[in-house]
Amino acid sequence: MNTSPDFQAVLDDIVHTLGPEAGREGQVARYIPALARVDATRFGIALRTCDGREAVAGDGDVPFSIQSISKLFSLTLAMRHMPEAALWARIGREPSGNPFNSLVQLESEQGKPRNPFINAGAIAVADRIVDLYGADARGTLRGFLSHLAGEPVDFDEEVAASEAASGHRNLALAHFMKSFGKLDHPVAEVLDLYFHQCALAMSCRQLARAASYLSRDGAHPDHADERVVTERQTRRINALMLTCGTYDAAGEFAFRIGLPCKSGVGGGIVAVVPDRLTLCVWSPALDATGNSHLGMKALEMFVARTGLSVF
Amino acid sequence: MNTSPDFQAVLDDIVHTLGPEAGREGQVARYIPALARVDATRFGIALRTCDGREAVAGDGDVPFSIQSISKLFSLTLAMRHMPEAALWARIGREPSGNPFNSLVQLESEQGKPRNPFINAGAIAVADRIVDLYGADARGTLRGFLSHLAGEPVDFDEEVAASEAASGHRNLALAHFMKSFGKLDHPVAEVLDLYFHQCALAMSCRQLARAASYLSRDGAHPDHADERVVTERQTRRINALMLTCGTYDAAGEFAFRIGLPCKSGVGGGIVAVVPDRLTLCVWSPALDATGNSHLGMKALEMFVARTGLSVF
Amino acid sequence: MNTSPDFQAVLDDIVHTLGPEAGREGQVARYIPALARVDATRFGIALRTCDGREAVAGDGDVPFSIQSISKLFSLTLAMRHMPEAALWARIGREPSGNPFNSLVQLESEQGKPRNPFINAGAIAVADRIVDLYGADARGTLRGFLSHLAGEPVDFDEEVAASEAASGHRNLALAHFMKSFGKLDHPVAEVLDLYFHQCALAMSCRQLARAASYLSRDGAHPDHADERVVTERQTRRINALMLTCGTYDAAGEFAFRIGLPCKSGVGGGIVAVVPDRLTLCVWSPALDATGNSHLGMKALEMFVARTGLSVF
Amino acid sequence: MNTSPDFQAVLDDIVHTLGPEAGREGQVARYIPALARVDATRFGIALRTCDGREAVAGDGDVPFSIQSISKLFSLTLAMRHMPEAALWARIGREPSGNPFNSLVQLESEQGKPRNPFINAGAIAVADRIVDLYGADARGTLRGFLSHLAGEPVDFDEEVAASEAASGHRNLALAHFMKSFGKLDHPVAEVLDLYFHQCALAMSCRQLARAASYLSRDGAHPDHADERVVTERQTRRINALMLTCGTYDAAGEFAFRIGLPCKSGVGGGIVAVVPDRLTLCVWSPALDATGNSHLGMKALEMFVARTGLSVF
Repeated sequence: MNTSPDFQAVLDDIVHTLGPEAGREGQVARYIPALARVDATRFGIALRTCDGREAVAGDGDVPFSIQSISKLFSLTLAMRHMPEAALWARIGREPSGNPFNSLVQLESEQGKPRNPFINAGAIAVADRIVDLYGADARGTLRGFLSHLAGEPVDFDEEVAASEAASGHRNLALAHFMKSFGKLDHPVAEVLDLYFHQCALAMSCRQLARAASYLSRDGAHPDHADERVVTERQTRRINALMLTCGTYDAAGEFAFRIGLPCKSGVGGGIVAVVPDRLTLCVWSPALDATGNSHLGMKALEMFVARTGLSVF
Repeated sequence: MNTSPDFQAVLDDIVHTLGPEAGREGQVARYIPALARVDATRFGIALRTCDGREAVAGDGDVPFSIQSISKLFSLTLAMRHMPEAALWARIGREPSGNPFNSLVQLESEQGKPRNPFINAGAIAVADRIVDLYGADARGTLRGFLSHLAGEPVDFDEEVAASEAASGHRNLALAHFMKSFGKLDHPVAEVLDLYFHQCALAMSCRQLARAASYLSRDGAHPDHADERVVTERQTRRINALMLTCGTYDAAGEFAFRIGLPCKSGVGGGIVAVVPDRLTLCVWSPALDATGNSHLGMKALEMFVARTGLSVF
Repeated sequence: MNTSPDFQAVLDDIVHTLGPEAGREGQVARYIPALARVDATRFGIALRTCDGREAVAGDGDVPFSIQSISKLFSLTLAMRHMPEAALWARIGREPSGNPFNSLVQLESEQGKPRNPFINAGAIAVADRIVDLYGADARGTLRGFLSHLAGEPVDFDEEVAASEAASGHRNLALAHFMKSFGKLDHPVAEVLDLYFHQCALAMSCRQLARAASYLSRDGAHPDHADERVVTERQTRRINALMLTCGTYDAAGEFAFRIGLPCKSGVGGGIVAVVPDRLTLCVWSPALDATGNSHLGMKALEMFVARTGLSVF
Repeated sequence: MNTSPDFQAVLDDIVHTLGPEAGREGQVARYIPALARVDATRFGIALRTCDGREAVAGDGDVPFSIQSISKLFSLTLAMRHMPEAALWARIGREPSGNPFNSLVQLESEQGKPRNPFINAGAIAVADRIVDLYGADARGTLRGFLSHLAGEPVDFDEEVAASEAASGHRNLALAHFMKSFGKLDHPVAEVLDLYFHQCALAMSCRQLARAASYLSRDGAHPDHADERVVTERQTRRINALMLTCGTYDAAGEFAFRIGLPCKSGVGGGIVAVVPDRLTLCVWSPALDATGNSHLGMKALEMFVARTGLSVF
């Protein structure tokens, strides 16, 4: 485990081996047209080591809709700029044990979402970011991602508009939290940020780079002296990813892959090997839990080949 | 039970006996200012026999916010003007067994409310009425109530505006049903009707009169030849009132009172003695189940004095 | 509604009309062999007016396993012999809103069953009867039923033994209540009574007769001067039947039939028309809610023909 | 993080710093007398590195009731001796998101427990061990623990008898699973094993030693050539501990401590630093989640001092 594998060869091998399966199992998210028409045979992978080397294979440079992966970065932004105690007063830290949109636990816990990676929790985080930045919230988040990725990233406005038009469940979640006094800002304003963050378009390479601080004890991907979050916060984010990052399959991911992961219904999954590297895989067809079917297989193969796992 | 009691004397006695307790137990609804400032010591009662005699006591001619009692009339309007099968395809007929605003069962039943008297069910009924009458929905409902009451009744616009301003939970319910494809019309339009129907201001006498068709096999309060709903529909509405009409206390009402009842958080309760009379009592202070504390005691006393009960 | 119909003709007509459908829809209970082998084409009906006239048609004199109908009589026995307040401290009075064996609400309500007609509630009632009669509990209950039916009735020991052998869900319920301190007597002793009461074998005629006090303000079927329960208790039992007597279909029964009913998975249903008559129908094939499919249709037809309904 | 700290000094410091707090917060488990009378001021800690060095401080050599920590070893025994696919067909791998004894999810998932560390899951594992060893199940488990600990360990028969006498909730769980056909062996036999495994008495040192294979890629604590489980299975067990090992506080443990942990209501917690060491801490007073209050603080301090964490 201690000699560095030839990561480019590992990624090439994964794309070579699994690529032909892309789109054969699972289903592309269909709730908005812009996602439904994504080519299900796309398959990309990229990694960045904590000392800055990168490897990319397949469609690893093709931008896709990051969707719930954005929750990782919005949480980081909130942890970076507000007192953690105030943040965690609004949002729990336990796995949900229920489908990712469930209102049940939100009701039994008086509007406090179980964790920042379920939709309700991410909406609560968005409310905190609106609180910090007001009308600049969207721009600040985009700027933060661009700063981490080392190049400009942007919203796909068509996706954002579609999310808003079909977002009745998220409207329900937001109004429900509002009814418990757990959102400070108007639902429309909070959801505008939330729908936009989900609509960020980034490639595997950009995401591996942007998440790199999670494998670098919180240091900026390119500047060891610029701290994105503290070492302790980094550990905490990784822990949250492992216990809550993949909808209702966190136990399965931990069991089969053993790495902190955050997935999105766009088919992307970001994974972290602390002190070693960050990895991002993309394949749009999802399994029944809402996670990329082939993405999960690719991560399993990566762990099997490299022996990298937190356990 | 067969000789007609002196109803005026019974009502006078109830007001005389229980009136001094008004406001001592329970709490006036506080979620909007217009309800919170209602005088908790108000206590009114009125009845109308199926042959048109009326008795009124206490504050029985003072208008109050009918709130959920309106669900009785909106359901009647929908049953009257659309095929029942189409109506019941959208809404269930079982008691909820859960607090009246619960989203839990709505989720497990894919957006189909358990019955037309929980909020979600009444919103689904409102969607049907918008479907029938479009922009005239509000006016049609007000006209229907005026026609039943025999005199004009109107919305309290301050209450309607307050309901809308604080209605996040109902917004959550509506968007949630919308996300399941169970509302056809825009949430804003449906809730505008819903918030207005809850804001109708009527007195006990007006409500006893308006509900009179429920004790007359469906015949209009004043015109035996005008059928509001059929005899069979009348029985069905009474059955729904008995099993679902008083939030999470339907079993308790059936057990202690034994009459079909529909209550509202404004403190009113309408009760029906089929083939005999309708009764309305009003006392604003609510018990923990959201029903008028003194209203329930008044109904118990009425049943004890008159022996009238369906069982 | 006030002239007495020719009840024998009504029952004959129901059997003539519906009899050919017997066993075509629904499924006989299969969880124990003794129930599974019952002939699904059996169809019986019987009634007894409050002044003692009887009418019987089809298999109305064939004994069957009364199953949950026994809960009606065990509740009556407990109400008759212990202070009601003590009884209702252990058992709620609200419809369950959930499948009849659900442990969910039992957990959220700390081991207090929602009502005496769900399994957990009937087990809690059985615990009270063991408390009253100890080793004579079984004999007392059988004696009570025989006294009401006017002739000896007995347990089907094969059914009782099968219930015990396959009763893991009821064992789970009982131990669960025991863990909350809500059963005073040993689980084995309480369930011995419960499994036996479910295994009572009675005919429609016997059940119509035994339940007759419910249409007679509590007076014994044959002796107006012997009160089984008080008039007020009678109303309460009828109310509980209407809101909770038919598993998760109480709303549907109230809506379509409008009479207090208690059903059992043996295919029997007892119905009450207060001040008029009691009725029992039997057809073993059950619908998805666990109620007799044809029994429910027979009751609908009876109400349509006679106009008898509480609403 | 890479030079080995002086572990004895770290443990001594933890005992010195936190020892005075022992018993001040939280409550000793009270559901059986043998646990209720444990001295709440006890505080022990021990570790064993993967190369066999040990450090012990405070009451680290005092045996206590390992309770749910036994679930770790019974799962290991089952994984070692039966095909994993057959095991996981019976038991899930997701965090429960609910209190550890909840019947709710067991009901909604047809008797399949969410994971092997909730009570229902451990009972399902016990059923598998009874299946493998029949009448020798108890002896085999004790022998396995003794073999891992390097010295004989034994059941506290008083505790086992008390567990059995007060075990109504576990009886409910077992009968409930049995009703779904998810236990093959008699409830009494399965629970006899389960109550005994919970009643094993071991010290922190013995537990740190017995769990040592979890930090050694599955190799026996003392014999590198004897594999307890495979390297892959070891990772999986560690992953399950991290996501499911501490009742309803797994997210909190991951967030604050970041190590795979398994706790018991006896006040013990076993933690694993893969490739480094295993650690066991004991303090009988529990917090609201059922985990040792001081034990959790001790683990936090250990992580803070040593920098050891999987993230």
